[in-house]
Amino acid sequence: MIAAVSKSSAVTGFPEWLPSQRMIEARAIDDLRGRFELGGFVPVETRSVEPVDVLLTKGETDKEIYAVRRLQAGESGEPSRLGLHFDLTIPLSRYIGENLSNLVFPFRRYQIQKVWRGERPGLGRFREFIQADIDVVDSTTIDVWTDIEVLDIASQALQAMPVPATVIFVNNRKLIEGFYRGLGIPEIAEVMRVLDKIAKIGVVEIGRILADDLGLPASTIGKCLDFAGISTTNATELEERVRELGVRNEMLEKGLAELVAVLEFFDGDKSETVSADLSIIRGFDYYTGSIFEARFIDFPEYPTIAAGGRYDGLVQGRGKVSYPGVGFSFGITRIFSFLFQKGLLEPSRHSPTDLLITLYQDQDKPNAIRLARQFRERGIACEVYPRATKLGNQIRRATRLGIPYVWFSKSPETAVESVKDLRTGEQVPADVESWLPDVR
Amino acid sequence: MIAAVSKSSAVTGFPEWLPSQRMIEARAIDDLRGRFELGGFVPVETRSVEPVDVLLTKGETDKEIYAVRRLQAGESGEPSRLGLHFDLTIPLSRYIGENLSNLVFPFRRYQIQKVWRGERPGLGRFREFIQADIDVVDSTTIDVWTDIEVLDIASQALQAMPVPATVIFVNNRKLIEGFYRGLGIPEIAEVMRVLDKIAKIGVVEIGRILADDLGLPASTIGKCLDFAGISTTNATELEERVRELGVRNEMLEKGLAELVAVLEFFDGDKSETVSADLSIIRGFDYYTGSIFEARFIDFPEYPTIAAGGRYDGLVQGRGKVSYPGVGFSFGITRIFSFLFQKGLLEPSRHSPTDLLITLYQDQDKPNAIRLARQFRERGIACEVYPRATKLGNQIRRATRLGIPYVWFSKSPETAVESVKDLRTGEQVPADVESWLPDVR
Repeated sequence: MIAAVSKSSAVTGFPEWLPSQRMIEARAIDDLRGRFELGGFVPVETRSVEPVDVLLTKGETDKEIYAVRRLQAGESGEPSRLGLHFDLTIPLSRYIGENLSNLVFPFRRYQIQKVWRGERPGLGRFREFIQADIDVVDSTTIDVWTDIEVLDIASQALQAMPVPATVIFVNNRKLIEGFYRGLGIPEIAEVMRVLDKIAKIGVVEIGRILADDLGLPASTIGKCLDFAGISTTNATELEERVRELGVRNEMLEKGLAELVAVLEFFDGDKSETVSADLSIIRGFDYYTGSIFEARFIDFPEYPTIAAGGRYDGLVQGRGKVSYPGVGFSFGITRIFSFLFQKGLLEPSRHSPTDLLITLYQDQDKPNAIRLARQFRERGIACEVYPRATKLGNQIRRATRLGIPYVWFSKSPETAVESVKDLRTGEQVPADVESWLPDVR
Repeated sequence: MIAAVSKSSAVTGFPEWLPSQRMIEARAIDDLRGRFELGGFVPVETRSVEPVDVLLTKGETDKEIYAVRRLQAGESGEPSRLGLHFDLTIPLSRYIGENLSNLVFPFRRYQIQKVWRGERPGLGRFREFIQADIDVVDSTTIDVWTDIEVLDIASQALQAMPVPATVIFVNNRKLIEGFYRGLGIPEIAEVMRVLDKIAKIGVVEIGRILADDLGLPASTIGKCLDFAGISTTNATELEERVRELGVRNEMLEKGLAELVAVLEFFDGDKSETVSADLSIIRGFDYYTGSIFEARFIDFPEYPTIAAGGRYDGLVQGRGKVSYPGVGFSFGITRIFSFLFQKGLLEPSRHSPTDLLITLYQDQDKPNAIRLARQFRERGIACEVYPRATKLGNQIRRATRLGIPYVWFSKSPETAVESVKDLRTGEQVPADVESWLPDVR
């Protein structure tokens, strides 16, 4: 059911949906927006481009950037200064830095836009896709409870979406880094980058890389893998299993306390929709505390459908003052491409039209268009069939699009105006000014 | 009031709004979507890029294209194959051509997306901006009544927008071309291109160019200028004034009949929101019949805020069969940049939050977050203040953002939970499970 973009102009990694699919996606985005606004988030839209140096210096090296330049500037001109954004967090941090005096902190914003990454397309991985982000950014220190409020809103929103069961895995960068530090690992960023691939390449291969490439001793590798193997929704169990590994470090304690607070908050729900998983690392460099990663429970091979976390140093004001933030990002295109591909969301209607106005003769067109205006003013979605062909042909349009009602004007055969409900087959006389459809 | 993007990373022509402005713009887009769906238009979203050759061959040469390429592909690699779309009509025609068997004709779609043009930014002219388009495309000939239905929906939508009074000027490419043909003008496209600048450079300069550069005789130039000077909402007057010029041509007759039909339909409204203006030409090459151009009546120097028309040859199916279409495009960014700049839309609220939950002590955070979840489940937009600072500081956030209500939990001072309406100053005891805000 995915829009088959099969012609020569098809562009790999830039998906497009059929109209009925887009109707579903747009409705889901509306619902999500409603939830974000219930959470007190204000909408922001940033430009699609950022200076390339802003994109490059903000710590993201493995996401390929699309550069943008005027075609008439020629191929041999100056290098591109602008690139398409690859997430909505870097643009947010730039936007906040530029509008400090116009914003009230904590600043709660949502942003739903396309982002672009020049990566090789794959399962759920696209070059152009829609993300829906919420973030809270403050002008002073925030604690784990801000993370928890954001996570709670995101978790509730995810559960309300028309998707299969999901789980949000949570970890904490302070916990990870503190643990590595406590183990005396010198190249912490390197080890994180390797461990981040654990789901993709497996424990054995990870162990081999840590030994051969990074030269870590077997006992350290064992502890790293044991640590990454910890997964639980229970705060007490989490604490016990981390303690069992016998690593002591101040940063570890901070991160553990935060993660314990998260689990304690959500464990009360007994819904197991939030779970600690110490193998979660996240690719972005800017995270400094809680990190979140949501997946479909029954489709573990499908990549992360939503993710986020705490970043304390990304947003900077005047004098290099940091504005800490925490956010959550929904991969809209990744979620809906999955649902459409699996046939999990079958559209029942292919048009928003409630009522198709048929034409008995071409001279009726002006009246039919005025009639349509009247119906629209009364909130009834309608359209006029463009020509007085056989009525069967006109009705066929309604049948094919799932339009529930068809309107017939007066004619030699029908002395009064009437309306037919195509779902029941019932046709009754109807008055333009009072008739109302029974939809949904 | 326009978001001051004043830092070094500001990028000219890529406007951004403050959150309260974006709230207004987003709400207006929602209203417009609602109107489009009442008109039976289904949502479509196309990718942002098209092959450069598709963009270049579809008849648009004076809109500069932004080319897109992976940064890592290097500056010296193969030339860019992809460009950002500069309108939503070319992508629509490509989309329809690729999805013929999945669409039902007439195909009525709306599309609200950003488009990009590498032009020099100016009054109301941006390099990145949002357009909102409706189009009807059919698999067989359509007549002027489809133009009229689209124009009627667009006109009603425009009148419902929070904007100053507008007028939609209408002309017809068949009428223009037929008139020029009837005058024996050889280079019709050239003359149209010159006449298109009449509002910008004035009648005298136009006359000079037509004489000196195109070598047209004075009598022909006089007729062209008289023709372009015709402007009326009355069909009879239109017909008489065109006839007075004494030019006869078959194509002119067709175009005149169509334009007369448009005026006859709308003149009945007596609202003068649709008017013939024979100086209207439109820049795009693909128009073949009705052309529309909307402006603010009291700000005639501000550029076109919405425009569209009939294109019979743009969309092509198999075997080069043409799918005629007619559309109307709203320049969302152009409209709202004007409203914000003129201060015509002043936001009363800067956040969707109805209720701010204050903290008496930091230990209350988990309860406050649970309380917020309860309120949200009941449809009340709320947020938790992130720390138990002085209550005055917490309330100040609500005041600054226009949040109408503040919630107080139990404390030594207040034995019961209570809520304060900041608009009236009234504070009353309130129950979590039954309290409802009175907003809007």
